[in-house]
Amino acid sequence: MKNKPLILISNDDGIESDGIKALAREIRKFAETIVIAPATQQSAVGHSITISNPIRAKKNLIDKNFYGYAVEGTPADSVKLAVRNLLKGRKIDLLISGINHGSNTAINIIYSGTVSAATEGTILGIPSIAVSLASFTYNDFSTSAKFSAKIAKTVLKKGLPKGTLLNVNVPALPEKKIKGVLVTKQGKSFWDDRYDSRLDPNRREYFWLTGKMASLDKSIEFDQKAIEEGYISLTPVHYDLTNYEMLDEIKSWKIK
Amino acid sequence: MKNKPLILISNDDGIESDGIKALAREIRKFAETIVIAPATQQSAVGHSITISNPIRAKKNLIDKNFYGYAVEGTPADSVKLAVRNLLKGRKIDLLISGINHGSNTAINIIYSGTVSAATEGTILGIPSIAVSLASFTYNDFSTSAKFSAKIAKTVLKKGLPKGTLLNVNVPALPEKKIKGVLVTKQGKSFWDDRYDSRLDPNRREYFWLTGKMASLDKSIEFDQKAIEEGYISLTPVHYDLTNYEMLDEIKSWKIK
Repeated sequence: MKNKPLILISNDDGIESDGIKALAREIRKFAETIVIAPATQQSAVGHSITISNPIRAKKNLIDKNFYGYAVEGTPADSVKLAVRNLLKGRKIDLLISGINHGSNTAINIIYSGTVSAATEGTILGIPSIAVSLASFTYNDFSTSAKFSAKIAKTVLKKGLPKGTLLNVNVPALPEKKIKGVLVTKQGKSFWDDRYDSRLDPNRREYFWLTGKMASLDKSIEFDQKAIEEGYISLTPVHYDLTNYEMLDEIKSWKIK
Repeated sequence: MKNKPLILISNDDGIESDGIKALAREIRKFAETIVIAPATQQSAVGHSITISNPIRAKKNLIDKNFYGYAVEGTPADSVKLAVRNLLKGRKIDLLISGINHGSNTAINIIYSGTVSAATEGTILGIPSIAVSLASFTYNDFSTSAKFSAKIAKTVLKKGLPKGTLLNVNVPALPEKKIKGVLVTKQGKSFWDDRYDSRLDPNRREYFWLTGKMASLDKSIEFDQKAIEEGYISLTPVHYDLTNYEMLDEIKSWKIK
């Protein structure tokens, strides 16, 4: 018992989602596992944190005799509250965020609550992994949960450099159809989106976001194309957003 | 009239904030200016977008005879709705997000709604600038607004590379006390935060986030230290989050 690693699990689909339950079931086989996740669905919240309002946490049944904490907040709130308060003083060996329903590749990384929870873990000094299953409809988390356990064990052994998380995307395929694992870069694909303009029953206009991902990545060296081709994608993601190549260019503007 | 650039202004403090009004006043002197911003305060929303609910926009008086649109959504929603619907078909020459009350340096860049609006502009192909005034209490936006106009004119002339925005932080000082302009990198400073645990009137626990920025940057080559030392800071920020240096390391793990 003493030698078991302590793994914190969070997500953005909420503590009641199938993905987090499947993940916890697999991780509990080898680690002391604590689930602290948003009480409700938080997709596309990005790296949102709650500062102007209080948040609450309550015990929540995850599985038979296994409880977690549901946090009334965002994914980043959940991780921050876990580390700064609920698990204060305990050494968390690894954080896993997921398993998300839907891929988090290319531009979606910046909108993603799943990645955001792992980013917050990284900021707080915990090796962190985000795991997503590349489908909104495929409900079989068994392959992605098994792979999560495998990658978790590897990261526990190898570590991750300060400030870098691992963003994992698993194709929505049965295990034997997955072609392999690729280390990838964040793709350039983005949303070709638009707003549906509609009228409410009182004849006032409202807008609803819709659209589809414009797939711009032609090579499996990019995350989005890798999963489209049936590979599991691993992308090292950091939050140093400086475009270093531009520093000299802007200096040459000589703005005073 | 025909030769005036079209500049879209947004922010995260909301359309009624002093910072956006001061900015619009200065930009209107040389550009056709359209203000489309959140109806309410949106600080720390990160790159949050609204996908599960409809959003609305309504006309809002900014200044005498000058109207903008207040969007019931996040900063990224406001920019997306502006580009994809409200201003559809028009060529937007520049987007400016701000002027934010409070700095957006170091780790705060990833929590920032101000930067998020500029990021969304960048994703949509518009040269974009985020401007923040480094104080929550200093209410004189005159210097930061004048500098915004100066940097706007420069970016209109020089352009910005695809996928990169300019993150501008102005110290809370009168113009003559500002030491100069520095091109900087995103700092490593982060929040040394904690949760106040309190009891509500019904004796149920709630948590409130508090803390202060742990200043880790000792050199003015970083944004946070530059503004602490009285310089205006310009940081080129992109949303390619790949940690390229880690690609080979992870490949060497040979995960199958």
